[in-house]
Amino acid sequence: MWLHATSKLVFESSTPVPLILMLRPRSGYGQWVTHELYELEPGVPVVEYTDGYGNLCQRLVAPAGRFQVRTSAVVSTADSIDVQPGAPFTPVQDLPDVVLPFLLPSRYCESDQLGIMATEIVADATPGYDQVAAICRWIHSNVTYQYGTSDASTSAVQTSQQRQGVCRDFAHLGIALCRSLSIPARMVVGYLHRLEPMDLHAWFEAFVAGRWYTFDATQSAPRGGRIAIAYGRDAADVALATQFGPSELTSLSVEVEEAH
Amino acid sequence: MWLHATSKLVFESSTPVPLILMLRPRSGYGQWVTHELYELEPGVPVVEYTDGYGNLCQRLVAPAGRFQVRTSAVVSTADSIDVQPGAPFTPVQDLPDVVLPFLLPSRYCESDQLGIMATEIVADATPGYDQVAAICRWIHSNVTYQYGTSDASTSAVQTSQQRQGVCRDFAHLGIALCRSLSIPARMVVGYLHRLEPMDLHAWFEAFVAGRWYTFDATQSAPRGGRIAIAYGRDAADVALATQFGPSELTSLSVEVEEAH
Amino acid sequence: MWLHATSKLVFESSTPVPLILMLRPRSGYGQWVTHELYELEPGVPVVEYTDGYGNLCQRLVAPAGRFQVRTSAVVSTADSIDVQPGAPFTPVQDLPDVVLPFLLPSRYCESDQLGIMATEIVADATPGYDQVAAICRWIHSNVTYQYGTSDASTSAVQTSQQRQGVCRDFAHLGIALCRSLSIPARMVVGYLHRLEPMDLHAWFEAFVAGRWYTFDATQSAPRGGRIAIAYGRDAADVALATQFGPSELTSLSVEVEEAH
Amino acid sequence: MWLHATSKLVFESSTPVPLILMLRPRSGYGQWVTHELYELEPGVPVVEYTDGYGNLCQRLVAPAGRFQVRTSAVVSTADSIDVQPGAPFTPVQDLPDVVLPFLLPSRYCESDQLGIMATEIVADATPGYDQVAAICRWIHSNVTYQYGTSDASTSAVQTSQQRQGVCRDFAHLGIALCRSLSIPARMVVGYLHRLEPMDLHAWFEAFVAGRWYTFDATQSAPRGGRIAIAYGRDAADVALATQFGPSELTSLSVEVEEAH
Repeated sequence: MWLHATSKLVFESSTPVPLILMLRPRSGYGQWVTHELYELEPGVPVVEYTDGYGNLCQRLVAPAGRFQVRTSAVVSTADSIDVQPGAPFTPVQDLPDVVLPFLLPSRYCESDQLGIMATEIVADATPGYDQVAAICRWIHSNVTYQYGTSDASTSAVQTSQQRQGVCRDFAHLGIALCRSLSIPARMVVGYLHRLEPMDLHAWFEAFVAGRWYTFDATQSAPRGGRIAIAYGRDAADVALATQFGPSELTSLSVEVEEAH
Repeated sequence: MWLHATSKLVFESSTPVPLILMLRPRSGYGQWVTHELYELEPGVPVVEYTDGYGNLCQRLVAPAGRFQVRTSAVVSTADSIDVQPGAPFTPVQDLPDVVLPFLLPSRYCESDQLGIMATEIVADATPGYDQVAAICRWIHSNVTYQYGTSDASTSAVQTSQQRQGVCRDFAHLGIALCRSLSIPARMVVGYLHRLEPMDLHAWFEAFVAGRWYTFDATQSAPRGGRIAIAYGRDAADVALATQFGPSELTSLSVEVEEAH
Repeated sequence: MWLHATSKLVFESSTPVPLILMLRPRSGYGQWVTHELYELEPGVPVVEYTDGYGNLCQRLVAPAGRFQVRTSAVVSTADSIDVQPGAPFTPVQDLPDVVLPFLLPSRYCESDQLGIMATEIVADATPGYDQVAAICRWIHSNVTYQYGTSDASTSAVQTSQQRQGVCRDFAHLGIALCRSLSIPARMVVGYLHRLEPMDLHAWFEAFVAGRWYTFDATQSAPRGGRIAIAYGRDAADVALATQFGPSELTSLSVEVEEAH
Repeated sequence: MWLHATSKLVFESSTPVPLILMLRPRSGYGQWVTHELYELEPGVPVVEYTDGYGNLCQRLVAPAGRFQVRTSAVVSTADSIDVQPGAPFTPVQDLPDVVLPFLLPSRYCESDQLGIMATEIVADATPGYDQVAAICRWIHSNVTYQYGTSDASTSAVQTSQQRQGVCRDFAHLGIALCRSLSIPARMVVGYLHRLEPMDLHAWFEAFVAGRWYTFDATQSAPRGGRIAIAYGRDAADVALATQFGPSELTSLSVEVEEAH
């Protein structure tokens, strides 16, 4: 499937503000970026670097006033995601070194607090893929998708109690529950074709049977048409815009269409 | 100053348990390891790797029963730590790329929640080193060092409320307050000469004026004689032993003496 | 200056052949990619990874027959390159760790063989930038730019003897002479505006006074309008296409125009 | 097998000279360092860093006069090396990204020049492990081990012509021949138990059937009792001491004994 995704962000600030953006999808395993556009206000110097997770990050100082960023990408991605019921748990001693950090608790995924809850949710599931699938089903059934009930500080423990939130909260809870079972899990932000209403999206991946699998607890069934923009432990790592000062994101518009 | 530091850890478990240890201090900027010993129970295969922060980590599966680890190191380190009152704040746009992750909130350092508190504490301080020093003084004066009042799940926000904790809590609070002011801060675990009672220790470093400076809110004055073992965002990254199963650390003994 | 660069490569092969391409310029220090296109024959799976020098590399298996690759990029780059006569030599002990590999001899830059020649060439120059400039002037005056006199196996020592070659040979000789004086030097491949005849180009960078400076011994004077595609020790690291089998690059066309 | 290896290096210089040493074996896959000693002349600041191959490197400025370095390590290592006749060639498209650089020609391993020779040597061998074994046997039979016939500038092509050299030359030729067949190969320097006469040693590893295997063309049969100190593309990457000035290594003594 070829997708054409565009985003437009507008920031406003009374003073110059350093920004770190993460808005450039990378080609890699599972997706190929064939066309790309990344436009900033003219005359603003910007530097791109690769973070510890392999994400391309853009550093700049947004000038005072209105600052607009526009991106567009045509990406080849899978129509459907890989699903592997029964795929076994990978014992910790067999995990690749680079996967180990995704076992640790992080800002929004306090996996050290959720072991009992996770154990109950997966009680009847075979260790591995089926446990993660059970966690997804449980979240989908027990957490209400509702804007305005959570904010940028909401963590998995809070979502486990409030039972409502948005895609980011669903992902954080899924990740935290997986990690509490010693299943590595990481956050993905990106685009999802036919998301309603259209917006940037967040989901997660879990490492079982020797590889990463995609899970999305906001959906009732596995679904492809995804473009990953960034990977990390949780939302702290993969904020599409991190602002170091009194800058406000006053507008964000996203579109995703089939390209061919 | 030459220090001779030794540690002995004993784990007990009813089943084999995967362990990740972080017990080998590295030579690098500020310390030189001239003698080192690292002994495990004979016959247990172990593999060492370097994590994303440059720490040397040891992976193994501890067998059922009693499992003992013994380390010893003779290290050249500074008698006193560098102190630089007035050293200026480094603007975010001038930070090296590799320092940026230490601005983000993490599991035990919810810097996104502590901005108001930090602003009050540093109200009269010059941006940069003096702000960090003010944070250290505030913590030292307002948080009581007390065993048994916190545990492995205690975070900076909790410590800011309970006003008691141990070295790890003091460090987490210091780190979170720094980050909320856009000062990068990271956790260090290691040995401190003449610590009373002797134990493994935790402190933090803050990045001002283009480099890392050492701070330790458990102390009334800056103090050298430190051996760093591991660096990370917070305790989640630098646990000296991460156990993936029902293993218990039943004994930990630490000694630090002058070597020459 | 905004440049629009395009390349079209055609490979032909009687069997499927693994290819590694390096054809995607990166945003970073000094250049910003605002539009990009990267088209392969439909249906050929491709994976992108980042090599040890930060270059984006594309892995694929070209099918038997004709295989075409087309890229295009609109890039903001400097009109003129930085020139800093008198900028001092950086002593080896002050070089950043990541720069050290660029002091070592490599496949096409046998710096261990060229110390006497280098010392003669820079006899009257101040250590640092002026030495590199003297090397460039010497090469420009003493080596004839001539197609067909060198090939993919030609190294700096050979060029120093034959005194003829193409851009790649000029760069290799410049790099090797710099390294023999303990000045780190690295190869760059990319586009150069108004190159005659238009083609992909190679030049080099030398590290003096704490940063990399651009040098191009094929030119009589410093000249901007460059888009870097890849960096490495020498041509072995930065081949735009590495073919592992009987594949032939039957056609390569390159265009570079001002974009605005 | 437990080995106790010691080395003593003495440098002499009329002026201070920057040195990069690579003398600290790492624990990792296949070996575990349980005791270690690393002594420099007192008062010489030294900094350790990790290079792009994972080697621990020590940077310092050796003062004018005599400068001594003494290291010692007790290491658990395999009695015998893994041997896997018939293990298949790993197609280039299936190699891990990090292995790819070991396919490229390098300073002392001009694999681009040795394809015909390699093809003849392995004419009757199954692609993969057996090809590498055939290369080793050929070198062992056709190249004479002889001190004083090669020097620090000798490369694989030269050794293929002169048919004499030392361990480093044997390794370079083996590596270059492997790479010319698209088999990744890398150099290892370290200690070998019962080497006659005792000295630091060099051998190589080839990547077949999805992993690295040890080969040593100086030996008539596979042999364990090895401690790896450093890995790289060839001797340029893994020099145990790189000197940037008029320093001379006036003495090198090495001892390796069984430790238990």
